[in-house]
Amino acid sequence: MAKSKYEYVKQFERDYFLIPNTWLVIRIDGRGFHQFSDRHQFEKPNDRRALDLMNKCAEAVMIEIHDIILAYGQSDEFSFILKKECNLYGRREAKIISTIVSLFTSNYVFHWKKYFPDKELHYPPSFDGRAVQYPSDNNLRDYLSWRQADCHINNLYNTCFWALVHSGKTEAEAENTLRGTSSSDKNELLYSSFNINYNDLPEMYRKGSILIKQEVDFKALNQNEVEVIRKKNVVMITNVDIIRNKFWEEHPELKLSL
Amino acid sequence: MAKSKYEYVKQFERDYFLIPNTWLVIRIDGRGFHQFSDRHQFEKPNDRRALDLMNKCAEAVMIEIHDIILAYGQSDEFSFILKKECNLYGRREAKIISTIVSLFTSNYVFHWKKYFPDKELHYPPSFDGRAVQYPSDNNLRDYLSWRQADCHINNLYNTCFWALVHSGKTEAEAENTLRGTSSSDKNELLYSSFNINYNDLPEMYRKGSILIKQEVDFKALNQNEVEVIRKKNVVMITNVDIIRNKFWEEHPELKLSL
Amino acid sequence: MAKSKYEYVKQFERDYFLIPNTWLVIRIDGRGFHQFSDRHQFEKPNDRRALDLMNKCAEAVMIEIHDIILAYGQSDEFSFILKKECNLYGRREAKIISTIVSLFTSNYVFHWKKYFPDKELHYPPSFDGRAVQYPSDNNLRDYLSWRQADCHINNLYNTCFWALVHSGKTEAEAENTLRGTSSSDKNELLYSSFNINYNDLPEMYRKGSILIKQEVDFKALNQNEVEVIRKKNVVMITNVDIIRNKFWEEHPELKLSL
Amino acid sequence: MAKSKYEYVKQFERDYFLIPNTWLVIRIDGRGFHQFSDRHQFEKPNDRRALDLMNKCAEAVMIEIHDIILAYGQSDEFSFILKKECNLYGRREAKIISTIVSLFTSNYVFHWKKYFPDKELHYPPSFDGRAVQYPSDNNLRDYLSWRQADCHINNLYNTCFWALVHSGKTEAEAENTLRGTSSSDKNELLYSSFNINYNDLPEMYRKGSILIKQEVDFKALNQNEVEVIRKKNVVMITNVDIIRNKFWEEHPELKLSL
Repeated sequence: MAKSKYEYVKQFERDYFLIPNTWLVIRIDGRGFHQFSDRHQFEKPNDRRALDLMNKCAEAVMIEIHDIILAYGQSDEFSFILKKECNLYGRREAKIISTIVSLFTSNYVFHWKKYFPDKELHYPPSFDGRAVQYPSDNNLRDYLSWRQADCHINNLYNTCFWALVHSGKTEAEAENTLRGTSSSDKNELLYSSFNINYNDLPEMYRKGSILIKQEVDFKALNQNEVEVIRKKNVVMITNVDIIRNKFWEEHPELKLSL
Repeated sequence: MAKSKYEYVKQFERDYFLIPNTWLVIRIDGRGFHQFSDRHQFEKPNDRRALDLMNKCAEAVMIEIHDIILAYGQSDEFSFILKKECNLYGRREAKIISTIVSLFTSNYVFHWKKYFPDKELHYPPSFDGRAVQYPSDNNLRDYLSWRQADCHINNLYNTCFWALVHSGKTEAEAENTLRGTSSSDKNELLYSSFNINYNDLPEMYRKGSILIKQEVDFKALNQNEVEVIRKKNVVMITNVDIIRNKFWEEHPELKLSL
Repeated sequence: MAKSKYEYVKQFERDYFLIPNTWLVIRIDGRGFHQFSDRHQFEKPNDRRALDLMNKCAEAVMIEIHDIILAYGQSDEFSFILKKECNLYGRREAKIISTIVSLFTSNYVFHWKKYFPDKELHYPPSFDGRAVQYPSDNNLRDYLSWRQADCHINNLYNTCFWALVHSGKTEAEAENTLRGTSSSDKNELLYSSFNINYNDLPEMYRKGSILIKQEVDFKALNQNEVEVIRKKNVVMITNVDIIRNKFWEEHPELKLSL
Repeated sequence: MAKSKYEYVKQFERDYFLIPNTWLVIRIDGRGFHQFSDRHQFEKPNDRRALDLMNKCAEAVMIEIHDIILAYGQSDEFSFILKKECNLYGRREAKIISTIVSLFTSNYVFHWKKYFPDKELHYPPSFDGRAVQYPSDNNLRDYLSWRQADCHINNLYNTCFWALVHSGKTEAEAENTLRGTSSSDKNELLYSSFNINYNDLPEMYRKGSILIKQEVDFKALNQNEVEVIRKKNVVMITNVDIIRNKFWEEHPELKLSL
């Protein structure tokens, strides 16, 4: 049972190495989450507990993978930004993607009970993932702007759709009502028919979630049992606009040129 | 907040398509499972419950992904074989790898309690994955032989190592005792010092686990409430030799030339 | 002017390695050969000298690159088949493609005068190239059948087109006449209008050119000045059908299963 | 002879698309040019005619491929820089590499006679090529600095080596003399033994050749036969330092940040 005569099969392995000095984005998406959210009766258009669970998973991934400097999430997707200088697994694509997808998934099941204490997890959910390389800071900002604009567009639509459905329309009727409407039509519909001022809805739903690392001070005892100030990285969650410059000006530690 | 001006960033996405008409192997590996098995006090050299959990996860993956015709597992790794004609996700590498890794991980956490009812899961485990393409049936059989020979070599070593440690040696002493020993030296050591006949140990530990799909008959009621025989695929687990021809001769449905 | 501080730029180089144990096809195509053939007044529909020059270049490539076992050419394209076991440049794609394209191009200009002794080369022609991997013998034969069927279809059309043009029609009129015609319509047109029996035309035009290597005996003097028989590889050109089995049965040295 | 049943083989074609918004470098290298230069008795350490021929070929490539903004050559290699926005062949790697290698090779044979009027070309030379992607302007400048530093190091060595050989040493003796010497040792050797001031040697040999495009005015007659000033791009050859900022400051049209 000599292993050596079979080892030539290792020569068929191919690694694709992502280009150095590019921003790496790993985006993961829920597989079949339409059905998953139905089966687990997620609140519509947004289920706060489900979004908090997504954020918890993203935080765990960020703590484990040091090269991630920012994560952006909305609905059942999350994008992780690895810094340009990142040399994680020698920038081997399959290894980076599979590790991040696996960590995220594992945390989702692990932490489910904390976020849905009275709801059983009926079956194991799954995610898929992909990697994208962005050469310039501008490209990266445009990527994040794309995702946040997408969040806004989807959330405005979904808010209208579910308001119509909750008011008694069928899903088909709601779809018909919304077909061809502009953003301002939808804002108007929410206001006039449902007395909802869209801009008053929680920012988490309208903007998605941005996770960044921040250095904080904490008190600890040194070897001589004297209290000292130490520093550690913690993950901060915010739901602000990341399309305009303000956020980036306030976070020079992310080192993106404006 | 027009989404369209940012959508050019999609042009940076690159898909790598695996070559048609090749056997695809997706191999996943536990990340940091040495530490994970210590923390969860797995029995050494083999923890039956942990292996059964791995098999359960692989079974779930096989049921979800129809193109998988066989899976082979040992220790904290599993290899999934997708048939040559498979067109899953248009053979996009990242999508196939990430989906299988995610499904496996999700099931691992989900089913943990069933296999370790009295052991809490202390933290979420994770796996990484890779894809390999094998053009010929011979290449694929050699791949599987490589993994099964590897299983044997590792298990023989681990069986000796833990017998020595359980008998009172330190881990360093056990390593020293085994350095440079041949297979027959190790068999002899087990027999003379510990009265263990290696070949009597469970096949699951010596051969790993092979999962294949089989069509079985089952009784069902048709529209007219008459009992009829229907067919469905179930996953069968076996622990036999897959290096020699016998297994492949007994499974012509796998369509591997001998 | 220390070179070392800049050498990190080598890390940006990426090599794509073609999968082992697959047939490799390198296909090269003339760039802008419609214009090139006009400028150099190639005879239409086929210029024997131009085809002979293509074959001469392919022969030179085959002699230089030992792993090529067969080449197939038609019009301004040539396909080179490298055997499955080929490890040329470690199967690096860019290196293999660029070398073959360069050798072919270089020979085209170098040998031009021999094939067009009374025609000046007005400007340097160029070719592009690509690599394709075929896992099975069947896939490779289907590839070659595809190219030979393409040769037939194009040649039948071009033969009709140029017969019409040479008989006084404009190119637009010839195109109109042929629009929507079947193969048998075209055969009939050639026979009835131009008294051409398509099957009597030279096989080189109808089938393209197949180049293979054959071992031949030759006489040489050994160290003791005694005449001995030695063997060497020479390139043989033929214009036979390679879609049916006959050719492959007659060439078992190519080792393609039937 | 239906072509369609074989057309599935096109599905095996794989295109690798280079990442958008990166500088593309295509570097070509002479294959076996040590032997080629011996066979054609190139002057050592530098043959002016051979270098001029290389430059002529690069110029022809630049004129044909509009996206090339700069080319750098030394010895038997040339690097072509395609601008970041380049969308040539949709950025398909094999197509870009093979086209540039083929054009260069073709011009080399085509223009040989002009540069070596009294020297027959004994056999067709060939080149290979590769593509590299550089995300930032700095990376690109470092690439070019790497090649120019390499030119200097090789030329200093070769100048010493051939001075020693021309003075009567064997090649092995010359190698021994130079083993382990520093740059200043070599400068000193040239000066004291051969009365050569290295810095007085032609810049073309010490710096290599830089080709850029420049817009020039020329006089033409318009439709009304009136003389007008028109603009066209011409290729300029220079041999200056491109490691320091000066060159880049003088060429803002290249749009590299300093």
